[in-house]
Amino acid sequence: MLNRQITLAARPVGFPKDSDFNLIETPAPSPNDGEVLVKILYLSVDPYMRGRMNDAKSYAKPVELGEVMVGGTVGQVIESRHLGYQAGDYVEGRLGWQEYAISDGADLRKIDPSLAPLSTALGVLGMPGMTAYFGLLAICDPQPGETVVVSGAAGAVGSLVGQIAKIKGCRVVGIAGTDDKVNWLVNELGFDAAFNYKTTDNYVATLRALCPNGVDVYFDNVGGAITDAVLLALNSRARISICGQISQYNLEKPELGPRFFGQLLVKQAKAEGFLVFQFAHRYEEGMRQMAEWIQQGKIKYHEEFAEGLENTPRAFIEMLHGKNTGKQLVKIAEE
Amino acid sequence: MLNRQITLAARPVGFPKDSDFNLIETPAPSPNDGEVLVKILYLSVDPYMRGRMNDAKSYAKPVELGEVMVGGTVGQVIESRHLGYQAGDYVEGRLGWQEYAISDGADLRKIDPSLAPLSTALGVLGMPGMTAYFGLLAICDPQPGETVVVSGAAGAVGSLVGQIAKIKGCRVVGIAGTDDKVNWLVNELGFDAAFNYKTTDNYVATLRALCPNGVDVYFDNVGGAITDAVLLALNSRARISICGQISQYNLEKPELGPRFFGQLLVKQAKAEGFLVFQFAHRYEEGMRQMAEWIQQGKIKYHEEFAEGLENTPRAFIEMLHGKNTGKQLVKIAEE
Repeated sequence: MLNRQITLAARPVGFPKDSDFNLIETPAPSPNDGEVLVKILYLSVDPYMRGRMNDAKSYAKPVELGEVMVGGTVGQVIESRHLGYQAGDYVEGRLGWQEYAISDGADLRKIDPSLAPLSTALGVLGMPGMTAYFGLLAICDPQPGETVVVSGAAGAVGSLVGQIAKIKGCRVVGIAGTDDKVNWLVNELGFDAAFNYKTTDNYVATLRALCPNGVDVYFDNVGGAITDAVLLALNSRARISICGQISQYNLEKPELGPRFFGQLLVKQAKAEGFLVFQFAHRYEEGMRQMAEWIQQGKIKYHEEFAEGLENTPRAFIEMLHGKNTGKQLVKIAEE
Repeated sequence: MLNRQITLAARPVGFPKDSDFNLIETPAPSPNDGEVLVKILYLSVDPYMRGRMNDAKSYAKPVELGEVMVGGTVGQVIESRHLGYQAGDYVEGRLGWQEYAISDGADLRKIDPSLAPLSTALGVLGMPGMTAYFGLLAICDPQPGETVVVSGAAGAVGSLVGQIAKIKGCRVVGIAGTDDKVNWLVNELGFDAAFNYKTTDNYVATLRALCPNGVDVYFDNVGGAITDAVLLALNSRARISICGQISQYNLEKPELGPRFFGQLLVKQAKAEGFLVFQFAHRYEEGMRQMAEWIQQGKIKYHEEFAEGLENTPRAFIEMLHGKNTGKQLVKIAEE
């Protein structure tokens, strides 16, 4: 049995391109004692992966050249030599861009296919869901009547952040990159307002118009000029959750910008970066709450699927360019 | 009786200059019922006053042209028509750059001259002391063994921040603008290390050398290139207290700099601006603790005095240029 894998072929300069990846075939591995063999069904592409392609010190080590690209997956155990797993079990774990993977189980969690579609374990009931839940609630503590601005609002995380803020009684304004996304946010997800930053000239004036009471909470997925504008509209004691800076990930050299600390000072505001892993001890709470909100119809989610491992680099690159609405996944095999 | 006052003559462009101020003489005012007349003894010059000279929306309203400059003072009640005050009482309050002032008492606090020198009510036992105490402890919660970096370290606030961090068991590194200040920080105040940013080429390398375990807490008084460098040396879960941005206050146009949010994200770090007033409900705790540390010899303070109201603009401008060590005051009259 062959295993197809996508490895890092070159470190990207600017936006990644197809040639930064290799598709290789290797013999599918066999599990040793204490291990399982997983057939991967769905693969997640996420902005953080761009950082792993650089040879830079960060919170996680880079992917080495020739190594299989990192990534979250959902799959099915097809052979188990681990007491905790049986063939047929569905699991979620960071098994990478490949069709089959070995795991010792430490990085896997079992998922119950009767509760929700398997793919949601990579989205609303997985890492993006927990990112939205804790990044908004634990970092920013939004209060009823406050105004919450979300950038990257139509993405996997941003689309959930805005809906959670609505549940908490906030006015929610989203920033996204197409008119279709803007319409989806307002008409389907219940955002109070949204705007297309690609067709808007004056972000500051637009924000002031859409946030007549100022901005109390900013959930930042993008950084750059959008964030510069939001900083000018902050209220006193505003809270900023820094989840991503996707506008900066593909720059060939770092961009200069207005200095922020003066704004944070006069507004007595807080900006805090976070990684979802710091809330791992609270995932159970977050999963239960998100599942309940979905059942109650208070949280909607949208998934887009590319098909086939070979299309993963393209799905990843298009996600970095903002092509997807909601969660971008790759379907690797039939369930 | 004449009252000399210093008013704002012009809004400064860049650094303030003498001609931005007027010295005028008016008749000394008389208190109405419910008011006191205060003879001012000491006046404080502080960086925040630079912001009040601009016609810009901020957390406090600007000083108008022709208006007496704002500022904290210590004085003595020389005539009282207020039940709560008697002639002879010593008081602290924001009575401005003048020799005599009327107050309805709401903005005054009585000070006991037997407990500490009167002037300390404008420094270590006043607003700068509370700024250091709460800005460090409430915002950053420094833990024993952590490394704390302080910019503007030889100023009224910074010199106290470093000493409080030492009391809390931290490694403390100061950044200041003269070799004398650096020596004072290390040899008199017990900082573990300090450097002169004006004679140091590579801030990042110097910080890395002086902070071998990285930076857990940064107390920022200055902003700009110094802060850029500290941001590169942060540890995971670092906390930044934004107290001032004095390097930016006198720029003729805002400066661009490296974008910070990416650093805050990968380090899961927090940056928070604060104003001391937000801790007003805890001043009693702060005052008591600072007084105790002074009595125990754990906190030292240094005061520099200009003499005479007419020299206040000069003292203020020189403070903005970093001429002073510790707290800069102006002695207006003999006690």
